Amino acid sequence: MSTLLVKGGTVVNATGTVEADVLVDGERIVALLAPGDQSLGPVTADTVIDATGKYVIPGGIDAHTHMQLPFGGTFASDTFETGTTAAAWGGTTSIIDFAVQKYGERVEDGLAHWHELAGGNCAVDYGFHQIIGGVDEESLKAMENLVDEGITSYKLFMAYPGVFYSDDAQILRAMQKARELGLLTMMHAENGPAIDVLAAQLAESGRTAPYYHGIARAWQMEEEATHRAIMLSDLTEAPLYIVHMSAKQAVEQVAWARDKGKNVFGETCPQYLYLSLEKQLGARSDEWGDFEGAKWVCSTPLRSEEEGHLDAMWQGLRTNDLQMVSTDHCPFCMKDQKTLGKDDFRAIPNGIGSIEHRVDLLYQGVVDGRISLSRWVELISTTPARMFGLYGRKGVIQPGADADIVVYDPNGHTSIGIGEGRTHHMNMDHSAWEGFEIDGHVDVTISRGTVLVADGEFKGTKGHGQFLKRDLTQYLV
Amino acid sequence: MSTLLVKGGTVVNATGTVEADVLVDGERIVALLAPGDQSLGPVTADTVIDATGKYVIPGGIDAHTHMQLPFGGTFASDTFETGTTAAAWGGTTSIIDFAVQKYGERVEDGLAHWHELAGGNCAVDYGFHQIIGGVDEESLKAMENLVDEGITSYKLFMAYPGVFYSDDAQILRAMQKARELGLLTMMHAENGPAIDVLAAQLAESGRTAPYYHGIARAWQMEEEATHRAIMLSDLTEAPLYIVHMSAKQAVEQVAWARDKGKNVFGETCPQYLYLSLEKQLGARSDEWGDFEGAKWVCSTPLRSEEEGHLDAMWQGLRTNDLQMVSTDHCPFCMKDQKTLGKDDFRAIPNGIGSIEHRVDLLYQGVVDGRISLSRWVELISTTPARMFGLYGRKGVIQPGADADIVVYDPNGHTSIGIGEGRTHHMNMDHSAWEGFEIDGHVDVTISRGTVLVADGEFKGTKGHGQFLKRDLTQYLV
Amino acid sequence: MSTLLVKGGTVVNATGTVEADVLVDGERIVALLAPGDQSLGPVTADTVIDATGKYVIPGGIDAHTHMQLPFGGTFASDTFETGTTAAAWGGTTSIIDFAVQKYGERVEDGLAHWHELAGGNCAVDYGFHQIIGGVDEESLKAMENLVDEGITSYKLFMAYPGVFYSDDAQILRAMQKARELGLLTMMHAENGPAIDVLAAQLAESGRTAPYYHGIARAWQMEEEATHRAIMLSDLTEAPLYIVHMSAKQAVEQVAWARDKGKNVFGETCPQYLYLSLEKQLGARSDEWGDFEGAKWVCSTPLRSEEEGHLDAMWQGLRTNDLQMVSTDHCPFCMKDQKTLGKDDFRAIPNGIGSIEHRVDLLYQGVVDGRISLSRWVELISTTPARMFGLYGRKGVIQPGADADIVVYDPNGHTSIGIGEGRTHHMNMDHSAWEGFEIDGHVDVTISRGTVLVADGEFKGTKGHGQFLKRDLTQYLV
Amino acid sequence: MSTLLVKGGTVVNATGTVEADVLVDGERIVALLAPGDQSLGPVTADTVIDATGKYVIPGGIDAHTHMQLPFGGTFASDTFETGTTAAAWGGTTSIIDFAVQKYGERVEDGLAHWHELAGGNCAVDYGFHQIIGGVDEESLKAMENLVDEGITSYKLFMAYPGVFYSDDAQILRAMQKARELGLLTMMHAENGPAIDVLAAQLAESGRTAPYYHGIARAWQMEEEATHRAIMLSDLTEAPLYIVHMSAKQAVEQVAWARDKGKNVFGETCPQYLYLSLEKQLGARSDEWGDFEGAKWVCSTPLRSEEEGHLDAMWQGLRTNDLQMVSTDHCPFCMKDQKTLGKDDFRAIPNGIGSIEHRVDLLYQGVVDGRISLSRWVELISTTPARMFGLYGRKGVIQPGADADIVVYDPNGHTSIGIGEGRTHHMNMDHSAWEGFEIDGHVDVTISRGTVLVADGEFKGTKGHGQFLKRDLTQYLV
Repeated sequence: MSTLLVKGGTVVNATGTVEADVLVDGERIVALLAPGDQSLGPVTADTVIDATGKYVIPGGIDAHTHMQLPFGGTFASDTFETGTTAAAWGGTTSIIDFAVQKYGERVEDGLAHWHELAGGNCAVDYGFHQIIGGVDEESLKAMENLVDEGITSYKLFMAYPGVFYSDDAQILRAMQKARELGLLTMMHAENGPAIDVLAAQLAESGRTAPYYHGIARAWQMEEEATHRAIMLSDLTEAPLYIVHMSAKQAVEQVAWARDKGKNVFGETCPQYLYLSLEKQLGARSDEWGDFEGAKWVCSTPLRSEEEGHLDAMWQGLRTNDLQMVSTDHCPFCMKDQKTLGKDDFRAIPNGIGSIEHRVDLLYQGVVDGRISLSRWVELISTTPARMFGLYGRKGVIQPGADADIVVYDPNGHTSIGIGEGRTHHMNMDHSAWEGFEIDGHVDVTISRGTVLVADGEFKGTKGHGQFLKRDLTQYLV
Repeated sequence: MSTLLVKGGTVVNATGTVEADVLVDGERIVALLAPGDQSLGPVTADTVIDATGKYVIPGGIDAHTHMQLPFGGTFASDTFETGTTAAAWGGTTSIIDFAVQKYGERVEDGLAHWHELAGGNCAVDYGFHQIIGGVDEESLKAMENLVDEGITSYKLFMAYPGVFYSDDAQILRAMQKARELGLLTMMHAENGPAIDVLAAQLAESGRTAPYYHGIARAWQMEEEATHRAIMLSDLTEAPLYIVHMSAKQAVEQVAWARDKGKNVFGETCPQYLYLSLEKQLGARSDEWGDFEGAKWVCSTPLRSEEEGHLDAMWQGLRTNDLQMVSTDHCPFCMKDQKTLGKDDFRAIPNGIGSIEHRVDLLYQGVVDGRISLSRWVELISTTPARMFGLYGRKGVIQPGADADIVVYDPNGHTSIGIGEGRTHHMNMDHSAWEGFEIDGHVDVTISRGTVLVADGEFKGTKGHGQFLKRDLTQYLV
Repeated sequence: MSTLLVKGGTVVNATGTVEADVLVDGERIVALLAPGDQSLGPVTADTVIDATGKYVIPGGIDAHTHMQLPFGGTFASDTFETGTTAAAWGGTTSIIDFAVQKYGERVEDGLAHWHELAGGNCAVDYGFHQIIGGVDEESLKAMENLVDEGITSYKLFMAYPGVFYSDDAQILRAMQKARELGLLTMMHAENGPAIDVLAAQLAESGRTAPYYHGIARAWQMEEEATHRAIMLSDLTEAPLYIVHMSAKQAVEQVAWARDKGKNVFGETCPQYLYLSLEKQLGARSDEWGDFEGAKWVCSTPLRSEEEGHLDAMWQGLRTNDLQMVSTDHCPFCMKDQKTLGKDDFRAIPNGIGSIEHRVDLLYQGVVDGRISLSRWVELISTTPARMFGLYGRKGVIQPGADADIVVYDPNGHTSIGIGEGRTHHMNMDHSAWEGFEIDGHVDVTISRGTVLVADGEFKGTKGHGQFLKRDLTQYLV
Repeated sequence: MSTLLVKGGTVVNATGTVEADVLVDGERIVALLAPGDQSLGPVTADTVIDATGKYVIPGGIDAHTHMQLPFGGTFASDTFETGTTAAAWGGTTSIIDFAVQKYGERVEDGLAHWHELAGGNCAVDYGFHQIIGGVDEESLKAMENLVDEGITSYKLFMAYPGVFYSDDAQILRAMQKARELGLLTMMHAENGPAIDVLAAQLAESGRTAPYYHGIARAWQMEEEATHRAIMLSDLTEAPLYIVHMSAKQAVEQVAWARDKGKNVFGETCPQYLYLSLEKQLGARSDEWGDFEGAKWVCSTPLRSEEEGHLDAMWQGLRTNDLQMVSTDHCPFCMKDQKTLGKDDFRAIPNGIGSIEHRVDLLYQGVVDGRISLSRWVELISTTPARMFGLYGRKGVIQPGADADIVVYDPNGHTSIGIGEGRTHHMNMDHSAWEGFEIDGHVDVTISRGTVLVADGEFKGTKGHGQFLKRDLTQYLV
């Protein structure tokens, strides 16, 4: 096997930094070495990467993506190939996507289909959560195989009646089963039935612009569903993970549960840290007029900055009431996709593409003094690994771990967007992040010892990424 | 320099475990190596320690000790020599003791005296916090030198009027100064003036037994002082560290502050995790009669298990509302010392000796399913290091770090106490922990590359320990 | 018109007491007079009732009764005649019963039917709330007539899927309509779909005894539904009244909402103040074996005294986080009714009969030092009047008010039950309150100037009671 | 004795309204009569007051005034004569002033002196609380006589070290004594020692303008002291009444305590409902320049409207987390008094004069939809009466009560201030309320049957007011 040495950098792990060289043999890290120490003799390697003045961090893990997701009559515009390639560009070396089962379908079929979609097509490693869109005897039975398949988490929806929605009886039964099996329950916590009434009332009264998507999905209905999920978790003793949180009052519910010692976790996304409902309200462009706001239609929706939701997400990251930042990457082009909802916001496909920018956007939080360097690494890599049963292999720079390594340059710069000289590799005709400037840069991305990105070039291949059979969550040991 | 290899063990750091060999060159760790990897050729060392089947952890850091402390007309019975030797036996390789300034004394003199007491006498490394017992113009001025001296934290007392007590005006001024200098404010949070009234009323009404110490020091007065310290911290923006917490309601106050994003930290001690007021009430022995309870007179006092205080401390460790477990090691013998209070609990010297047992007692929490293995290491070593500006050097097994390493055997056993076949090396005529059984054992203790304890023998020397100049707390980066 | 003078007593109103004579002319109170004052000359009346040494209080208002309610294939065993007669015996001079609309029925029909049942049959005055068991376009439209009908409150159920249950979309729409009309929304707050799963699991595993009714209806599902109702109320700005609360955590949710200034009100019932799940678990009799517990099957269920639910209800009454105590009077005989569930607790008709004892049971709270004398009157009469738009006419002893007056003897005694020498006039073959002793006694009950009970005899008639057209709630003025 | 009839009005009591005539015989109300009822024959009286279209309310009770208070080298500018005359103009018929004991003085002497000052000089009835400014053996002993003297409440200060300040040991001892005697503990809850440090730092750095008074008295120090007082109350089980609250966070502490069922009460003042720190910051006048702000220097200080403190006070009144609105009437003229602090805000006498306007200012809250009509009466009269042992005699329109009656015209208008055509009878050279317009008017003020104000004229006399021996608080029965 060939060896690789990342030399001269500052290794950043979740608890702190260390000046150390990292030696890779084949696909794994085999040694961390004090620079200049002679006790092992001169250390050489087939390839040497100079990381002087740069951070050496474990590759990013994006635990919430939706490649090729069918939604509202169309499909998320990134394939596993385009999406994972963009991920590599952005310093992310593992993703966990969602295999889909809808009401009336078999779980096994959904999972098999997802394996087909992803197998042989990924540039970085990938795992799956399982969406259970129809809880019944059959799907409950099917859950029993998931752990063996390396799928140790599954997702329910309190929203989208008629598509993915589970009622409380179904949630209760699924949680009981999850508790028995050790599966982590992920929850889309919005009161869908109530939201759909509000949305219909808005649309029927002529308020059809994209902005009303956020008005219909009122924070009260996120807070409510969050509390409800917590209580069902309390009743069943099933650990609970709330996805894509954006309302400060919902985070307060998670904090309340955690203060009582309950196993409840919260995830937010870059869009809820940086983008606001006010921005969406004011959005206008020559090309799209006031339909411009459709670019930021996602669920949960963007929230009001004025009401303090954005600051609350950052605070949640500091207080650890929120443990995770995933992208909920679910890209749709404006042309032919978002425009399905030109006359009614309810028909706009929900989603934003961010897989390429998560590591950068979070790093900007370090620059802005919002989180520490160690917390950055914890958020982008270590916690996702521990949360979803990958720690040891992923999420840390240490001997024995997969050599998923990113060299990050704090003196570099990244201009995000589709404009000239800007960074964008996702399959979208626009960027939700157009114009964002990052005071740092992903220089090198290495996945299991293979350099995917270096010298401003993509050097990976679409078959490199392997399926990750995951262990049970390591957060509850 | 000579080399040492800890081979075959499971390295446990604060975020997880890894099978790795640890190579030491001189005083420092120089490499972590994947077992069996051949890319660096065969790895040899002058000394090889076999850690197969055992945990390899960073040496314990006890951030709260009081060697030779003058208290109530006597002195804590452990010298820096006896105390640090006991520490080494118990897997603790660094302590942070408190240099003392009382009202009317100069800070510089107190610090110099503490350097005299400790210098050349310690078996393990040692640092100091500075007690400021008399806040005035002179001592505020003296605080300005502390950072340069490597003393980056100082302690105030809301209890003990006439000895260490600061009133709120003094606390405010000290916190303002600390905020300016970057010093971490440590607080003994009990409302001393109120407690002293209650204690006097009890004693004067004939309730003089040791148990009444705990009655006088009511939980309300710990909760109150904790809240007060938090608000003074909020006003001055000075980070705050509450020492030796034992009341669940006080922990709730810390949780409340942390939920709001305030920089407030909480420390508890082994005695508040395992020992109860009920135990103290029922204590009786042939030798001491019902004065037996004096062995557990400490401040804050033991709390009622029935009222849930002990469980609340464990829960605080899980929810991270408590971040630290130190010993508040302050031993007194029954003979000639505790007996000063034979007729009046107010005259019993306050303190319990635990420096030798902290690593073991916390490990038992792992065995009992109360905390995870990683959390154990975080509590005994990593967090103390980060909290008090030692991380990188201490608190972690990584290249470049001091080779403070403990080999811990999960299949070993430790019987604590002064009885035959039991473990006790502290200078005390009794053990507060008599009869405690631990399902694990400290096999080897290494400090900066030197083996202090191995094969059931102490191999260290009293001059080995060095003074630790500490950086500013790393918790607020 | 004839006059009546209640002389020499202590008038107790909701804010305090006063020594005053009460003069009634026809159906109304016309004067409160300082005893012995001569400025109006000698005061005479056709009838004089001596209340010396006794309390003169406004007649009780029981705002939650279910006469003749169809439930589980049978009907509540009290007719409007038997139930209101028992009410009069117990010092209650007004009831508010629930007209029923179920899914598939017309609101108007349900209401008309209830008027038929009650009209000409009541011994005391009666009003109606409207149950909306099927929220749809038609029933929403029908709500618009309710205020004119004198029905200013309506009730939804989050429990009983397939019978009364409304989903969140339905609740949202009903609340919007209620907000528009000024109707007060009453909510049965239990998560029925989840509870039904638990109940089925218990029953199918052979745990069919009455006690499991309480296990299935876990407090978490009351707390959850309470929070959900609060958030839907917050979203729609519709005032909310939670009926028959029994879980302390649910009361905490109401307190949380009220602290934020939300218009949320809470009602508990005598059974949740005095009767416990432990009592139900231990209940056994010669006649019924361990089916004895069926006597206390009601929803929400009895809760654990050990866990503090009962104390929490009393505390809620003191802190005003609970404002109301109604009976939820819904009696079923053991024979032929409760026994429907002999083999499966799910088939036991839910309900307890208490209409006769509410005034007494609450008075015992005064004797036991749990509430004040004024709070007693506020709870049994004044608050129900204000809450449901009757104040001025009812709920207070003042000129112009209906002469609904109770003379209550604090030196009397009441032994509740069906045994010899005990008090019981409800149409039941048992008493849920058998053996309760009250240190007080209802001596005289007067309704609109007519003496219904005096000298231990019922002197009323079944046609006396009139329908009460109610104003909007007076709590939100 | 002569009789008086208030005819045709709407009587407003704390639970609701009633159309009733009020008959007074001598000093007391002897009957409430339904208008037009003939059962007592025609009702006549020596004097008839027509209240048609107006509210008939119990006379206001201002439970917090400081006539002639010595403060900072001067005296509050209202004597008992001028102050109580202004009170009568404003519809207030009872005051409770504070007798003063300072450190080194005897309680008996302070009380005797206050009797001298007030006796024979008051236009309305008056009672006393006792300030204990120096808690020691002697003053604790003296507390034992207070109840017999009709002084059932006393006040401690956590502010003003060296003048009124009690430390926590003193507070504890006083509360223990109060608990024993049944006295209600009133607390000025600000952390004085800390505030004085901040004030000195501001003044010494040149920030001497009135506005800095509010900056120095930071909300954190009100919140802190409030919590501390609550915990000392919890420890001693002594009921607690926090005076003049202005910080929303302090009110949150009271709410927290009340939610747990503790006997804690909160008072705010009109200035904290209507006047803001921002107003004070911006205040400027030709006469006083930016010293204009001195008019609103009081303690606790005005708070920031932007930060939500003012809204929080109104919400506290609605949620009943605040139960009382008193004036803390403590007037000082600008000339010769406020100007003592021209160069240093610390020397500005603390206080605002409002005794004349409380009833009006609170009524404006009714007009503005902030409180209900009944709550208005409860706040201005009923609750003060119950809180301080006067209920029955005062605080309610009912037979037997003192004939303290105000006829309030909701169609009248009041323009407050010292300008032409404005209302002001207090002995001040300015008004803190200049320019406030009230949509209502005090038409008639009657005290114990004697008309003090009518037809826009003062008809009272300075000797009319009598000393009120008060019962124990009626809030805890």
